Amino acid sequence: MTELSRRMVLAGSAAVLAPTVAGMPVRAAAPPVGQQVAGAYRYKVGSFECTSISDGARSFPVSDSFVANVPKAEVLAAAEAAHMPPGMVTVPFNPQLINTGSKLVLIDCGLGGAFFEASKGAVGRTVTNLIAAGVDPKSVDIVLVSHLHPDHTNGIRAADGSMAFPNAEIMVPAKDWAFWMSEENAAKADSNKMMKDYFANVRKVYAGIEDKVTKYDWDKEVAPGITSVATPGHTPGHTSFVLSSGSSSVLIQSDVTNIPELFLQHPDWHVAYDVDPDLAQATRHKFYDMAAAEKALVVGFHFSFPSQGYVEKDGPNYRLVPIRWNPAI
Amino acid sequence: MTELSRRMVLAGSAAVLAPTVAGMPVRAAAPPVGQQVAGAYRYKVGSFECTSISDGARSFPVSDSFVANVPKAEVLAAAEAAHMPPGMVTVPFNPQLINTGSKLVLIDCGLGGAFFEASKGAVGRTVTNLIAAGVDPKSVDIVLVSHLHPDHTNGIRAADGSMAFPNAEIMVPAKDWAFWMSEENAAKADSNKMMKDYFANVRKVYAGIEDKVTKYDWDKEVAPGITSVATPGHTPGHTSFVLSSGSSSVLIQSDVTNIPELFLQHPDWHVAYDVDPDLAQATRHKFYDMAAAEKALVVGFHFSFPSQGYVEKDGPNYRLVPIRWNPAI
Repeated sequence: MTELSRRMVLAGSAAVLAPTVAGMPVRAAAPPVGQQVAGAYRYKVGSFECTSISDGARSFPVSDSFVANVPKAEVLAAAEAAHMPPGMVTVPFNPQLINTGSKLVLIDCGLGGAFFEASKGAVGRTVTNLIAAGVDPKSVDIVLVSHLHPDHTNGIRAADGSMAFPNAEIMVPAKDWAFWMSEENAAKADSNKMMKDYFANVRKVYAGIEDKVTKYDWDKEVAPGITSVATPGHTPGHTSFVLSSGSSSVLIQSDVTNIPELFLQHPDWHVAYDVDPDLAQATRHKFYDMAAAEKALVVGFHFSFPSQGYVEKDGPNYRLVPIRWNPAI
Repeated sequence: MTELSRRMVLAGSAAVLAPTVAGMPVRAAAPPVGQQVAGAYRYKVGSFECTSISDGARSFPVSDSFVANVPKAEVLAAAEAAHMPPGMVTVPFNPQLINTGSKLVLIDCGLGGAFFEASKGAVGRTVTNLIAAGVDPKSVDIVLVSHLHPDHTNGIRAADGSMAFPNAEIMVPAKDWAFWMSEENAAKADSNKMMKDYFANVRKVYAGIEDKVTKYDWDKEVAPGITSVATPGHTPGHTSFVLSSGSSSVLIQSDVTNIPELFLQHPDWHVAYDVDPDLAQATRHKFYDMAAAEKALVVGFHFSFPSQGYVEKDGPNYRLVPIRWNPAI
């Protein structure tokens, strides 16, 4: 029996460095394809047909402030334990398309074409992946935005500034709109580059359409079978959704946590993007205690595609059990 | 703040049962699509372009003998803890396509079109998914079979009995071929329906092509950069593969375990399909001790699509940390 050891793995590696067998063609008949398949995954919730859509993912170096209340070394150790690239974290972005039978609703819409110049091609793939999944962006009836951070809202615009979903009503949380559109709040954030950029970004993305946007409240059926749920802290108006059809339901958490490998495993860690970190932490415990008790299926914008799983308690923390891919719906 | 509670989830459910808003169209402009997207996922190993292909998945009731050495109640509890359908287990099937640059190699090939009549459409999707991923079955140079169980080998034939990969060399483990083709072994298995069916199946699938099949040994470079590794027990000739290109490698385990939720978490459980359960158990520990120590990426035929993860030690057992979906390659 072959020795199952490091030597074996290295032996395999050495073997391919050896000259290839004489007479073997240098190239396969089939050329490499060179790109990933479309990032789309369908699932049913009662009679609703839903599609998880990948907007892409960004890997970036962990900064000192990425987790505000934890030493960088501890963050790097957690990222390494989660098999992230060395010194980095990988953050994916996953909007959800819900066909309720009467409305086609896109919950969050990704980064659009223009935000992270350095990540161009790696993010902003929502429209491309929708089309690959057979969905015409013109057929989207509602874009339902969970909060006004760029990765959730910038995708309402194509790279040329035109509306990416031209026939869609755009719905934003009233509380987030009030917060981010306040000149007083914007002035206060002037010394914080990230916040300053976020205030400017909201103004730019919504320029000229301010009056056409629908502002929604919490605890309302904002679209058929989709109820807005208050989960503030990450932003003042940060909203999750309960999606219900018949006896089935899922919790679309939005950003109750950022990446689960760090912030669901460590619910008391404060990601740099939280506007009110203490409130976000309290919301996290409340939300996940409920989700774990109910064994609810949770959809997370920053969970790895297809971005769904079950939350389990793990002492004072939580862990995510990703769903198994269903080849049929 | 909305109460995050069971009442909230139920409230969402009740809301959708209420009369819909007056004037709202009864149907969305966009009809439901009604099927899953193609089950294909690309990844690079050095210069090799690889594609994980879903052959589908089967859910079936747990029988008394599904785990030979554990009471059914314990198995059902583990399945329930893993969020399997009530009383059932779900087993996925995932062949791997490897483009080495000089050869297009399909490692295992799924159930084909004719095995599980009751699961028709749910399994046997390898060719459909290959085509959806832009791969012509005629371009496959080698079908490399890990062992001669139906879910790994029957896909060499289309439903009409013709060769599904007409230009491919078919390679099978010499030790498995000797075991399953032995009339003496077949006669001994006559009282065991499952084994009897397996012996008959191998004869049927390979009828007329017995002399055209290449029998390979362990510890050989069976295709460029692909080394056969002895992992016997599940079947006498059960083989795993080390795939190596440059400084990168992955372990393609085949069936060192069946579904990880049960048999990687509980490596001493004996799945009904193991020909030599004690040897399979010893192989499991040896293989996963090595994989955990090396932090090797492991590809499992019965892991949830896209069927890759890292193995970690969990006391005397193991756990699988699935990879994060990479939207770009």
